[in-house]
Amino acid sequence: MRSIQEILKGRPWLGWLIFLTTVVIVFLLGMLASSIMERRAEAVFAYTPEVKFSGNEPRSSVWGELFPREYDSYLKTADTSFRSKYNGSAMIDMLRESPRMVVLWAGYAFSKEYSQGRGHYHAIDDIRNTLRTGTVPSPQPNTCWTCKSPDVPRLMKETGTAGFYSGTWDTKGSEIINPIGCADCHDAKTMNLHISRPALIEALEAQGRDISKVTHQEMRSLVCAQCHVEYYFNKKKIEGVAYLTFPWKNGTSVEEIEKYYEETGFTDWTHALSRTQMLKAQHPDYEIFLTGVHASRGVSCADCHMPFISEGGQKFTDHHIQSPLNNVANSCQVCHREETEKLISDVYSRQDKIMENRIILETLLVRCHVEAKTAWDLGASEDQMKDILNSIRKAQWRWDFSAAGHGNSFHSPVEVSRIVAGGISFAQDARVQLARVLASLDNNSEIPYPDINTKAKAQAFVGLDLKKFNEEKTSFIETIVPQWLNAGSEREKGYNK
Amino acid sequence: MRSIQEILKGRPWLGWLIFLTTVVIVFLLGMLASSIMERRAEAVFAYTPEVKFSGNEPRSSVWGELFPREYDSYLKTADTSFRSKYNGSAMIDMLRESPRMVVLWAGYAFSKEYSQGRGHYHAIDDIRNTLRTGTVPSPQPNTCWTCKSPDVPRLMKETGTAGFYSGTWDTKGSEIINPIGCADCHDAKTMNLHISRPALIEALEAQGRDISKVTHQEMRSLVCAQCHVEYYFNKKKIEGVAYLTFPWKNGTSVEEIEKYYEETGFTDWTHALSRTQMLKAQHPDYEIFLTGVHASRGVSCADCHMPFISEGGQKFTDHHIQSPLNNVANSCQVCHREETEKLISDVYSRQDKIMENRIILETLLVRCHVEAKTAWDLGASEDQMKDILNSIRKAQWRWDFSAAGHGNSFHSPVEVSRIVAGGISFAQDARVQLARVLASLDNNSEIPYPDINTKAKAQAFVGLDLKKFNEEKTSFIETIVPQWLNAGSEREKGYNK
Repeated sequence: MRSIQEILKGRPWLGWLIFLTTVVIVFLLGMLASSIMERRAEAVFAYTPEVKFSGNEPRSSVWGELFPREYDSYLKTADTSFRSKYNGSAMIDMLRESPRMVVLWAGYAFSKEYSQGRGHYHAIDDIRNTLRTGTVPSPQPNTCWTCKSPDVPRLMKETGTAGFYSGTWDTKGSEIINPIGCADCHDAKTMNLHISRPALIEALEAQGRDISKVTHQEMRSLVCAQCHVEYYFNKKKIEGVAYLTFPWKNGTSVEEIEKYYEETGFTDWTHALSRTQMLKAQHPDYEIFLTGVHASRGVSCADCHMPFISEGGQKFTDHHIQSPLNNVANSCQVCHREETEKLISDVYSRQDKIMENRIILETLLVRCHVEAKTAWDLGASEDQMKDILNSIRKAQWRWDFSAAGHGNSFHSPVEVSRIVAGGISFAQDARVQLARVLASLDNNSEIPYPDINTKAKAQAFVGLDLKKFNEEKTSFIETIVPQWLNAGSEREKGYNK
Repeated sequence: MRSIQEILKGRPWLGWLIFLTTVVIVFLLGMLASSIMERRAEAVFAYTPEVKFSGNEPRSSVWGELFPREYDSYLKTADTSFRSKYNGSAMIDMLRESPRMVVLWAGYAFSKEYSQGRGHYHAIDDIRNTLRTGTVPSPQPNTCWTCKSPDVPRLMKETGTAGFYSGTWDTKGSEIINPIGCADCHDAKTMNLHISRPALIEALEAQGRDISKVTHQEMRSLVCAQCHVEYYFNKKKIEGVAYLTFPWKNGTSVEEIEKYYEETGFTDWTHALSRTQMLKAQHPDYEIFLTGVHASRGVSCADCHMPFISEGGQKFTDHHIQSPLNNVANSCQVCHREETEKLISDVYSRQDKIMENRIILETLLVRCHVEAKTAWDLGASEDQMKDILNSIRKAQWRWDFSAAGHGNSFHSPVEVSRIVAGGISFAQDARVQLARVLASLDNNSEIPYPDINTKAKAQAFVGLDLKKFNEEKTSFIETIVPQWLNAGSEREKGYNK
């Protein structure tokens, strides 16, 4: 056996070499361990190429030349095949799935068409195609474009916010041609996240908050909250303008928003059957999300819907905004160490349990509207109906708040359950009172549930002639839309790149 | 600078000493790392002292001589100060908190007294003290003792299961004197967990399951499920015997158990006001737990209610069975890396959201019973009332299933929300029908909500004379119970240790 001494004999440098090599290896091992443990830190994206295009540039393809990976992943929002238990493929016709909704929205445009939205890439096509926007002149204001395009902040800079909201929806058809894209969430100078829509800033100001003081992590949700929220068109602010407003002044819970609407005397429409002054909830995704455990733990929208991915050794944010159920490995499994199928079945289980009672509430609301109509038909007085209609309004507001959001039952299952149960309770209150009013009008037997087991039957029941709407829409798409596209395309030729 | 070579010169043993020392240190470091990472593995408790007492030994103090740490921690179940938002201290009088419950249980012993149970240590005192067990002869069968004492398996071996259940509750007063303890869950020979009560084994057999095939981790919940479950007294099995039975044959969900009761034509009691054939849910803790995410992730009851602790370098199971909210560090925080106050506020938030609608359901049920009584008083026919009473039965079953369990709103908040909403829906169905029946009997105005804002008023409202029950109970505790204790104590002197 040779001793270490013998091995080193005549080689004083060898001992030091071994020592120093060991020091370096240990140091590198430490760095590796640190890198593994804190891999999130890598996520900070430091590369910011020099931007030569205008801050108003609405074409994502132009931004995409500098950010090819983000742009390529954004283009995947064109993909319409995605995973969801209740929505097997894109553009599910929700009125076909639940013809009850036609009755719930009788007298309102949603009873004509309510289909699942597709990815952001299709935002402009989808808003042109829906029967709700009609043709020329449109029954809707330009406010309806607000969330659909990066042409919107460009135009708002030209016309002012109120100027943008003015006029009917068809009057800006040739101006707004680019679907939701880069400029909606990013500042062209710094590439930082920024809020391009005034409604969110105004809503935060109404709560006494300052958008310039929010953290980067909050911004990763707030850019989404520019659109994925409850809103209404305030027509009292400026004469003749449907001013986009988030009803957040009292807070963002279902009751706080309802209180806001009570205080401002707002009503979306008068129900065609029950004559109730109705509220329509608009996808209050962010509000519901705020009440859930993920928000409570500091998770942002982007963490799950736009998780970090790696490609060619580069880590970047996946701009293929989609359901995390399509992307469990990069979203859920960053924190949850369970199998994909297990995690998905947990989501479905929550949805099932909530859907069960949401459908009960829907059915009770159909009965409420039909029973109230019968009461009116039999000669009920305003005084007899006042409390009843108020309960119907509250019940349907709760149903809509729980049903209209994307992913509500996942984002905050206990809160959504609470809202649905509250809705059932208001519906029962309305129905008990209706039974008494009907009995006082000599009708003391059950009002038959209408035959509305298909969308067509339900639309006929509420007196809608879809044939006419469909024909007008087809003609509009074939004649008007190509003109819009041409005019828009000519206009964009003048943009400097 | 001296080279390593020079240092080692003339000392060949020194190089090898440094090398071997390094090997040993690295090996120990590896063991330390492994110990830290897999500390759960330590939890296996290998020490099994030689047991000299009988397998039927009911006195936990005797077992405690061999397992002092477990016994000492078990004794802490005598502590009655514990944390809960709704139950600030032990033995909360639930009827005082919610006098509505008195009306819901009119005609049933629970309307006399329903107080929060204390720790296992008090099980015998509590069952003697409650007005529900009465005095001599008791209105209850011996079956009521089943979950209260390790004297029960001892007696069952002597009398057989059905023999044990026979006779009124007071007839075994001197036999059952030790509160819930060691022998209820442990086998005296192996100290392994074992099922000492036939009802659970019979229920699993009815589902086609074999208790001998379950895993150790399942046993860490099943020993609790001997008692913390929905059960009923089957009086059809053996003439004159209230045979303790878990209604699990169809499954353990609220609907599956309801279906079982429908199929077997079971009713706990006839409601004193509405004449509804009622079901009483008995703390279905295990059933609700099974539907929650903790069960789904393989967590057992003991993991949170009896977490491992260390004392004097020894790791053992904490037998101070209690709310994990009292013990967040050893229970929740083993998995959840959030601050204690944050975790507790999350639990309270779920409870609040569910409690809101549970109280609505309670209030609607009071109205149901009162309105049904009015209908009967006005001359309603059995035929008119049949469907209404069935809806009341279903509504209250759902209320009770959600309210009776310990910690339900935490164990499975979405499931409990679902059940409560279902209950509200059945209550609304009953009330709408009741409004029609009442109108047909010339009563078409709202039936006033009773003045039951205190327990005393509610008990007077349902015709209960508490004074008599209280006086009888006091006399019973002063005269009969000391006789039971003496007789029991004499008997135990004959036990060999």
